[in-house]
Amino acid sequence: MARQTNPGRGRTSFRQSLTAVLDPGSTIGILGGGQLGRMLALAAARLGLKSHIFCPPGDNPGSHVCDRITLAEYDETAACETFAADVDVVTYEFENVPVACVERMAAQVAIRPGIDALRISQDRLVEKNFLAGLGVATAPFAAVDDAPMLAQAVAGIGLPAILKTRRLGYDGRGQVTLRTPPDVSGAWEQVGAAASILEGFVDFEREISIIAARGLDGAITCYDPPENIHANGILAVSRVPAQITNEIAQAAMTLTTHILNALDYVGVIGVEFFVLKNGTLAVNEFAPRVHNSGHWTLDACAISQFEQHIRAICGWPLGDAARHSDAEMHNLIGADAGQWAALASEPGACLHLYGKDAPRPGRKMGHVTRLFGKELHT
Amino acid sequence: MARQTNPGRGRTSFRQSLTAVLDPGSTIGILGGGQLGRMLALAAARLGLKSHIFCPPGDNPGSHVCDRITLAEYDETAACETFAADVDVVTYEFENVPVACVERMAAQVAIRPGIDALRISQDRLVEKNFLAGLGVATAPFAAVDDAPMLAQAVAGIGLPAILKTRRLGYDGRGQVTLRTPPDVSGAWEQVGAAASILEGFVDFEREISIIAARGLDGAITCYDPPENIHANGILAVSRVPAQITNEIAQAAMTLTTHILNALDYVGVIGVEFFVLKNGTLAVNEFAPRVHNSGHWTLDACAISQFEQHIRAICGWPLGDAARHSDAEMHNLIGADAGQWAALASEPGACLHLYGKDAPRPGRKMGHVTRLFGKELHT
Repeated sequence: MARQTNPGRGRTSFRQSLTAVLDPGSTIGILGGGQLGRMLALAAARLGLKSHIFCPPGDNPGSHVCDRITLAEYDETAACETFAADVDVVTYEFENVPVACVERMAAQVAIRPGIDALRISQDRLVEKNFLAGLGVATAPFAAVDDAPMLAQAVAGIGLPAILKTRRLGYDGRGQVTLRTPPDVSGAWEQVGAAASILEGFVDFEREISIIAARGLDGAITCYDPPENIHANGILAVSRVPAQITNEIAQAAMTLTTHILNALDYVGVIGVEFFVLKNGTLAVNEFAPRVHNSGHWTLDACAISQFEQHIRAICGWPLGDAARHSDAEMHNLIGADAGQWAALASEPGACLHLYGKDAPRPGRKMGHVTRLFGKELHT
Repeated sequence: MARQTNPGRGRTSFRQSLTAVLDPGSTIGILGGGQLGRMLALAAARLGLKSHIFCPPGDNPGSHVCDRITLAEYDETAACETFAADVDVVTYEFENVPVACVERMAAQVAIRPGIDALRISQDRLVEKNFLAGLGVATAPFAAVDDAPMLAQAVAGIGLPAILKTRRLGYDGRGQVTLRTPPDVSGAWEQVGAAASILEGFVDFEREISIIAARGLDGAITCYDPPENIHANGILAVSRVPAQITNEIAQAAMTLTTHILNALDYVGVIGVEFFVLKNGTLAVNEFAPRVHNSGHWTLDACAISQFEQHIRAICGWPLGDAARHSDAEMHNLIGADAGQWAALASEPGACLHLYGKDAPRPGRKMGHVTRLFGKELHT
């Protein structure tokens, strides 16, 4: 179980590495080669760190910008072990990495944000129960393991409600909205007869998120909360500042702090909140990773969420989360990316394209952040 | 001489490529794998472009972040041809790329900023004569091809003066300062008996530079001029705004425009100016590439000099060069990089490390840009 050592690099032992600060020149292991892994690798490079990405074969835009790549399935034991032996810390760009993969690597190298965060966020029911245990409000919910339980849940929660698979749902997939009683019949089959939860509708005024980081020393830093607009279950726009009071922003940060501390979390987290019409907050869900609603930090802050995550997982001090500009981020989804030339011509617009091959409908191809609200010198 | 085509990528012909806009997904060929090549590759990635770096074997930090790398000497014909056939445009990160290498590639692919800019900037005498031909003031200078010509040049220009080799000098190398007559004897041997020029001292008040870009369509955009402080012949600090009048800034931009147009330049240029005590300007030298005194644009502008260069050489519209923050950039040279942990703790400080192995004295290991002057929201 001893870590494979590389004498030429003067590596610390595995036990030491769990608390050590990683020096520049160290290698970040990233599970996942999508746009988040890509932007993490770019942020690591800015700090003089190398990246080694592990992902299954396919269109992996992260692979264009990393120092090393392992193309393998997450259940290939030998590939996992070789990867873990080559890197100084492992992080993940998405919450559906198989827990078994990460548990295997955890015997060799530090995993950050950690396995608990992964396990909890992979299952909507476990996540909701975890939040409830912290006293954090969510939408009303009930477990649904079969069609009779769905009927029972609908009776308890009422309509409208949303049936969501407990696992492997993202960007609106694996979800059915139930508005009237006829919608209920067949819904269980529509989610593939998979273990699910029924969530009641929340009468919200707006959606915000907290992008926060917790360091290896327990320090916590939050960016200003963006206000988020979704379309077809996918984030469309994030805007800072959100049209909320300081009290609401502070309350959302406090709840996020509870979550981070309960998980002994290290890294960046994205927590999605509903702001209810009565001014209270309910958590929608959290993602144990950099978050789409934090992409504006690349252009509007000295330290982006990606750099903040890299700093945290390397044991570095967290950076200043202040923003120097107001910002509005629009995702470029599917054919939207075809607007790149017009967007590149627009003053104050910061264009980001992810280098993906095929602009399939619903696929996040890039984003654009418009900076404004402060006088720009010329 | 036809370009090797790749039907899978729907490549345009070589003639077409000379005027075409490169789509996202195209590959930038970068000659040189140092920190400038690295930051160009990172900027290309942001726009969904791939990078292929060509450089001799060694410590090449650019290689950590590019999609493909060719390790070869610049005079290896086959490697040059294979590289040129693989990329959609070629650029260079330093002005001492052998002209023969670039001429060879120019038969296959567009070279930007172009061969003239390279040829002129490689030779201090040719550069000074080029500037004089445009009516641009420089320090007084004279060609020195042997020891008697040095004596003659000193008699004409006076002391103090600097003897500089015409070729392959940078960061103060290949230079001898002559303060008193005894310094003159032996100076010719000190520069290696290489073809040189003698430059008279310029009684300057401060040094500034213009970082400007010219697009494929001839459009020109300038960043605000930084004020630069050198130590031991190496840039130490760049600060924006410079303490100069608008008239001086405009005059420097106008001179830069003359240089760009005369070279039919495409890409970013760095032009170094002396601001004389009488308020006039003299050009010190220009670099046909992104420039160390423009590194602050990474953090203080929506579009950095690196992205601006990539936009220009791809035929994209130039970006907005406005800055959102005041900035002060300090180079981290040699052992300075050891301060990384303290710098990472400093609010408003943007740390950049280049991923180089060995912090040798005089070696540029990274830089830090402090943002200030605008109110930062928290």
